[in-house]
Amino acid sequence: MTTQTNLEIAATARRRVLIVGGVAGGASTAARLRRLDEDAEIVIFERGQHVSFANCGLPYHVGNVIPDEASLLVASRELFRDRFAVEVFTEHEVTSIDRACQTLRVRDLKTGLERDERWDALVLAPGAAPLRPPLPGLELPGVFTVKTIPDTRRIRAFLDDKPRAHATVVGGGFIGLEMAENLVERGLQVTLIEKLPQVMPPLDADMAGFVALHLRQRGVDVRLSTGLAGVEARGERLAVHTDAATDIVRDVDTDLVILALGVRPEVTLAREAGLTIGARGGIVVDEQLRTSDPSILAVGDAIEVKDIVSGAEQVLPLAGPANRQGRVAAATLAGKHAAFRGVQGTAVVGVLGLTVATTGQSEKALTRAGRRDYHVVELHPGHHASYYPGAKALHLKLIFDTRGAILGAQAVGTEGVDKRIDVIATALQLGADVRQLAGLELCYAPQFGAAKDPVNVAGMMAVNVLEGQMPLADWDRLDEPGHLLLDVREPREFARGHIPGATNLPLSELRARLDEIPRDQPVWLCCAVGQRAYFAQRQLLQHGIDARNLSGGYATWQARRAAA
Amino acid sequence: MTTQTNLEIAATARRRVLIVGGVAGGASTAARLRRLDEDAEIVIFERGQHVSFANCGLPYHVGNVIPDEASLLVASRELFRDRFAVEVFTEHEVTSIDRACQTLRVRDLKTGLERDERWDALVLAPGAAPLRPPLPGLELPGVFTVKTIPDTRRIRAFLDDKPRAHATVVGGGFIGLEMAENLVERGLQVTLIEKLPQVMPPLDADMAGFVALHLRQRGVDVRLSTGLAGVEARGERLAVHTDAATDIVRDVDTDLVILALGVRPEVTLAREAGLTIGARGGIVVDEQLRTSDPSILAVGDAIEVKDIVSGAEQVLPLAGPANRQGRVAAATLAGKHAAFRGVQGTAVVGVLGLTVATTGQSEKALTRAGRRDYHVVELHPGHHASYYPGAKALHLKLIFDTRGAILGAQAVGTEGVDKRIDVIATALQLGADVRQLAGLELCYAPQFGAAKDPVNVAGMMAVNVLEGQMPLADWDRLDEPGHLLLDVREPREFARGHIPGATNLPLSELRARLDEIPRDQPVWLCCAVGQRAYFAQRQLLQHGIDARNLSGGYATWQARRAAA
Repeated sequence: MTTQTNLEIAATARRRVLIVGGVAGGASTAARLRRLDEDAEIVIFERGQHVSFANCGLPYHVGNVIPDEASLLVASRELFRDRFAVEVFTEHEVTSIDRACQTLRVRDLKTGLERDERWDALVLAPGAAPLRPPLPGLELPGVFTVKTIPDTRRIRAFLDDKPRAHATVVGGGFIGLEMAENLVERGLQVTLIEKLPQVMPPLDADMAGFVALHLRQRGVDVRLSTGLAGVEARGERLAVHTDAATDIVRDVDTDLVILALGVRPEVTLAREAGLTIGARGGIVVDEQLRTSDPSILAVGDAIEVKDIVSGAEQVLPLAGPANRQGRVAAATLAGKHAAFRGVQGTAVVGVLGLTVATTGQSEKALTRAGRRDYHVVELHPGHHASYYPGAKALHLKLIFDTRGAILGAQAVGTEGVDKRIDVIATALQLGADVRQLAGLELCYAPQFGAAKDPVNVAGMMAVNVLEGQMPLADWDRLDEPGHLLLDVREPREFARGHIPGATNLPLSELRARLDEIPRDQPVWLCCAVGQRAYFAQRQLLQHGIDARNLSGGYATWQARRAAA
Repeated sequence: MTTQTNLEIAATARRRVLIVGGVAGGASTAARLRRLDEDAEIVIFERGQHVSFANCGLPYHVGNVIPDEASLLVASRELFRDRFAVEVFTEHEVTSIDRACQTLRVRDLKTGLERDERWDALVLAPGAAPLRPPLPGLELPGVFTVKTIPDTRRIRAFLDDKPRAHATVVGGGFIGLEMAENLVERGLQVTLIEKLPQVMPPLDADMAGFVALHLRQRGVDVRLSTGLAGVEARGERLAVHTDAATDIVRDVDTDLVILALGVRPEVTLAREAGLTIGARGGIVVDEQLRTSDPSILAVGDAIEVKDIVSGAEQVLPLAGPANRQGRVAAATLAGKHAAFRGVQGTAVVGVLGLTVATTGQSEKALTRAGRRDYHVVELHPGHHASYYPGAKALHLKLIFDTRGAILGAQAVGTEGVDKRIDVIATALQLGADVRQLAGLELCYAPQFGAAKDPVNVAGMMAVNVLEGQMPLADWDRLDEPGHLLLDVREPREFARGHIPGATNLPLSELRARLDEIPRDQPVWLCCAVGQRAYFAQRQLLQHGIDARNLSGGYATWQARRAAA
């Protein structure tokens, strides 16, 4: 030890932090760590050609909304070097981790040369890879995924060559919908196939129904309950084989196929190094983002995180959590206390003018988890005061438990959707109760909201349910016998369309015609959106009649039918 | 008592609830009470011609954005009768309350006839009246307030007659700004005079500076620190006399004058009935909205409410709280428990494309209350991800106490302003900490937000301040000696404009030129918006240099200069 060289002294003096993966989580970790530790040597190895690029922007680059590829490069290697003194090696793949020696095996993908890199601390941020099921034909030219900038180059080149092509998007989740939008905006005919009976799997089927309706109105050929069976070359075109059980055409003749089937965590490196992988397929970490080897941290799409509502572990490949994880990992590395508390699944997608957003648990997820201790209210208010021109319908669903805790919310509309979900997401994360939603003091001027904002109204409806003032009917049991379905809209509205089997008795005549209401069965009340039904319900309940509200009214019924 | 008539029996059997005032608070009380109590007799007396009209829409009716007056009528007398079985008497003024006999004296303003009306329960919702200071000339034709539909009829008639007139708006608060917008949109030349040295009194001067800048860019002649001294007729026109102490012209030659000086609670009736009036001039109520006489409730603009941040009583004439108060009052009347917990002053105004919003306490209000235990961060991010086209600057100010509790926030910008204030208002109301703001999981897709939303960034900055990682410089002491002002932008940016006295040393060269930084005085760091200054600060602090951040950077400096 007395013969240490200068190089070794320097090496021990300066802590060496290596980061595997340089997009959201890895890049955030590096930048934050530098702010906390000016001395550490920080090196990023990124397998791809680009560090810190905006992968959420890729569909919009395909659609030419973001025409310049350079816009997607949030921070270059040079910026990392000059601003953060962080060295970035792109096109360098880490092939193995030697935990005993604390070294990484790194391959320069341009030269093929390999080398070992010593670490004092290691952060894994390898991300997630697009799912490519083992089906025939997915390697054919014209079949694409959308995960990297080179992916978008290939798709753009294809579209420049065939600007009036027909595209098939496989998968109706976030990326699938964004790709459908961007391909439509570029003038393509688009077929969207989705294995589930709905688009947007995080949403419930009724809310997803509004999205499917909108896609179809905008000319997208949406095929639900239709899985991909394979792709086949047919001359210069492709045939997409599906497993559709219905009588619609099983094959789609198309020019290009976008696979948007979701992603899986990239855990090969972690698994081979003996780190614990969880049941959901992600790297297991604690709140400080330490893996099962506490000298190795992990962040981003590759890790499992706790859902703060359900308590279950899950993988959630979203940029927001990845960035916050980078911040926590940097604090852990710097010896400061920070904790990543978990996620709640707040997400938004824009699709052809419609905004779709969600936070927390869906009804579907609760049912799957065996929970029955919750209620749901649905409403369809304008996004701002109705007396100011331009109010657009906002479809909002609020899910809460029988004590009043917020469990989740979903919203669909053209304006003000993200605002309402952000407010509810904030309330949910802070442990608020629906009573507190009802009392929130939010911005109101007629072009921005309403004296009772849709979030307030949702909270007030929930309180009415909890306090027994608005017992709910069960949409899923609408077709069962044993109740009178009463539509309290005006006759002219009823005539334009109503739920089959409904009887019409307008609210304005209800007090005078109370004796027409039978008392031998529950009365299920419906109107356009649920408000007049509630007014009617209050009258009937106070007269001793078992009256229940079909929350969301005819608008919800239409969405449910579209989803079915 | 044995000779009771049928009429008397009916009267005693059915509880009679009278409501004085039928706009936001009164109308909400009536509608909600009916839902809770199908039996009560509910009667509204409204002095004006209209019940339940959208007074927040009046400026937009003047501006023809809401062309049809009928749009402003949220609920008619007929709707109240048919839907809620509530009787409404418009143009009926309640002139006195006899608490001993439980009767109101009511005058029919159309006939002049008076009568007594018996009540079992009474709700006062008289609202607030526009301030009209005792100055000469305010009774002249062409001088208007904007409080009722007849007011807007008069202004619209005037404008139809003189469509290219010059207007003077007196008062730069919510109504003043909305009137300025609508008069500009109708093609008028507009002068805005405001006694304070800033527009938008609920905001701090620096944030209000962005608003004044914008108004001037849109052609409004904004005169700050300029009070109204009187109005004088000059031929067919008007001369507005001001008390301006500066060398600008003291008089404004104009065609019409809009008085937008705020409102005062209408408490004459309550005071004459012996009910307690508070120090802020409003009716004193408890959380159940009972006045000092528990058989009389009061709601809306006429009452005093507790500010949940400062704990002080105040009057806050806003529609949102009034509506929620109506709901609480109805519950109290129905024997149910509910409480109105107070207000926090969330408000928004749109002015010529700019959105201005606030919640909680301003720095100004805290200083006035003698508080020094708070910090302020300012930021100017894009309203969504910068790589997606169309990101607009969002100016955001977050105020928090030294323990981390959120005290208030203000925002100005063209997009996404109300969303961020709604999120912070929700967090504030739920008692959240800036650490929780930093960790909020909000909607992110590139057209809606950022992986680190501006709200997250504000929270992260606040945490950096609290944890000592980002000590702040004091903008108010910028001109005092004793520090080096270092601008770390690139030379080309510095050359386009900088704070007088600043030295330029770009962040990209800072590590190599650290020895140029003097160590004998604090270094105050500035950049465009504060981010690069923070990066520089982290380097300097880790090298033992006393470095402080001018939060908000050059953008905040420009706004402060505009406000001065």
